[in-house]
Amino acid sequence: MLRRAACRVPSSSANLGPGYDVFSLALAAPSLEVEVELTDSTTDVEVEPMGRYGDRVNRDPGSNSAARAFIELRRRLKRQTGAKIKILANIPVGKGLGSSAAEAVGAVLSASKALGFELRREEVVRLAASVEPGGHADNAAASALGGFNVILQEESGPEFLNFRAPEALGLVVLVPDVEKGSTEIARAHVPKQVTMSEHVEVTSRIAAACVSMLSGDLRTLLKAVSIDPIVERSRAEAGVYGNCSWEELKEEKLKLLRSYGVALTISGAGPSRLLLYDRANSQSVEEGKRPIDLAVNETVASLERRGHKVVEVYWTGPDNSGAVLKS
Amino acid sequence: MLRRAACRVPSSSANLGPGYDVFSLALAAPSLEVEVELTDSTTDVEVEPMGRYGDRVNRDPGSNSAARAFIELRRRLKRQTGAKIKILANIPVGKGLGSSAAEAVGAVLSASKALGFELRREEVVRLAASVEPGGHADNAAASALGGFNVILQEESGPEFLNFRAPEALGLVVLVPDVEKGSTEIARAHVPKQVTMSEHVEVTSRIAAACVSMLSGDLRTLLKAVSIDPIVERSRAEAGVYGNCSWEELKEEKLKLLRSYGVALTISGAGPSRLLLYDRANSQSVEEGKRPIDLAVNETVASLERRGHKVVEVYWTGPDNSGAVLKS
Repeated sequence: MLRRAACRVPSSSANLGPGYDVFSLALAAPSLEVEVELTDSTTDVEVEPMGRYGDRVNRDPGSNSAARAFIELRRRLKRQTGAKIKILANIPVGKGLGSSAAEAVGAVLSASKALGFELRREEVVRLAASVEPGGHADNAAASALGGFNVILQEESGPEFLNFRAPEALGLVVLVPDVEKGSTEIARAHVPKQVTMSEHVEVTSRIAAACVSMLSGDLRTLLKAVSIDPIVERSRAEAGVYGNCSWEELKEEKLKLLRSYGVALTISGAGPSRLLLYDRANSQSVEEGKRPIDLAVNETVASLERRGHKVVEVYWTGPDNSGAVLKS
Repeated sequence: MLRRAACRVPSSSANLGPGYDVFSLALAAPSLEVEVELTDSTTDVEVEPMGRYGDRVNRDPGSNSAARAFIELRRRLKRQTGAKIKILANIPVGKGLGSSAAEAVGAVLSASKALGFELRREEVVRLAASVEPGGHADNAAASALGGFNVILQEESGPEFLNFRAPEALGLVVLVPDVEKGSTEIARAHVPKQVTMSEHVEVTSRIAAACVSMLSGDLRTLLKAVSIDPIVERSRAEAGVYGNCSWEELKEEKLKLLRSYGVALTISGAGPSRLLLYDRANSQSVEEGKRPIDLAVNETVASLERRGHKVVEVYWTGPDNSGAVLKS
């Protein structure tokens, strides 16, 4: 039997504007790697974080997502084995890019391989999601399955509907130095009630985003995801995304869409910004700069004007493969 | 120049469960026909209804949808001409099957042809919707464009995203003798506020319905559209659909889905019932009856138990052509 297995897991962006708790998208960058090595101990689980954000990863097996996912897998499979879990932590932590879900997915996938056990991808998602705060499956689905994901909440549990995202969809992730606190704190800023007109605006945007994602109609997709009058608005008002009121954020979103055809959304619970654009829309508009270059510059400048720094920029696109075992 | 043109226009079903003000589907049956004959009068518009529901059609040109749409078209084109509008009214009136939108679409299409003027289909929708109560475009979009339609509400006005509906999708329309009053009365029973959990349930169902409609995954589609905890619930509670509480209606929906794989929805503002099923799911389950036969029988029996009569049954499917001019 194998004693060791490793995999690469993409980061992910939940919500995509209006799709709170419904949409997620896997990102080709950043990504992390998880290696699980079974040990002779029957119980001990050791976490060894490395990589760019290794110092931000919790080493305590009771809190670390990868360790918790491993322990849950071991319990379900009724196996007594310890593990050393190495995490090449190259996804920023606490920035709305699904790093904990990616760790959990990576641990489940690598550990099941090392244990000689093949799980269906849906089971990988369910197991990884079960150790996520609130059991939310959006990030786990994207990291495990890749592509564009719709979560259908069923009484029997969530179902994951998984689709390829268009290759022409370009993505830029801007990570500011804003500390939002935990995702659970961000969830507390979701309103308890919404008005019927907000509800209809959001359902209309969600429907348009789904059909245009599947049909590859990027012009409609970017328009549909660019505004979320419910969750993004109320979190912006609560300061979760930094020193930026909803009015200012909305103004910026409308301007980027109108001037450059770029949709500015908040990735998951934030604070990272996810810019979506059409790669075909690359004609330079000003001194050799494409519309997306100008949109990125403006978004960075706007964060800096508000006293924030952009600490990472990822020029990327959808990941349509999901987590991949390394041979 | 032509003096006369006629077209056939499909009926339509708005909402499809959770998609209030967002979804509509064109139905291959019932349908109506509108013939416009230009007259020498510069102003007079005469409405001549015929067909199965001709006696339910308003003959007053100030109230009749086809006449109002014709008058609006004439105004926009700055043409001075009268018309005799014949309507072969074979769509039940006031039953949630979009008969007034179909009349308006038919009048715009036939009149523009008779006037020698070619309108883009989106313009036909916009013009027909402009004479609908509240300017709602869902039924008009389905009748003009056919297929499955998503309405994206934009500040600049609605956009219509139009897709083929799967051929394997079977539909049965049951028209009960319930009188719901006007669509505007039904709209008054839409709640002003919804809870976040209802909102997320509906957005999740809407997203799942869109992706499964486009991918042809009927199992997921039927599950996604089968329940609407917001608008269908509150209209059921207000009695818009007849003597049937939401609890009873929901119980019936869940039973049809579980036992027969059939989704029971209310067509538009009701009271017609739209049953959706997979035509491939046709193996007889009981004395030569298919699951859909049993589901129809149960729905009819349930309406009768509550003192209603089913006055029409249409065994049909999606119409993927939209309104068609007759040569």
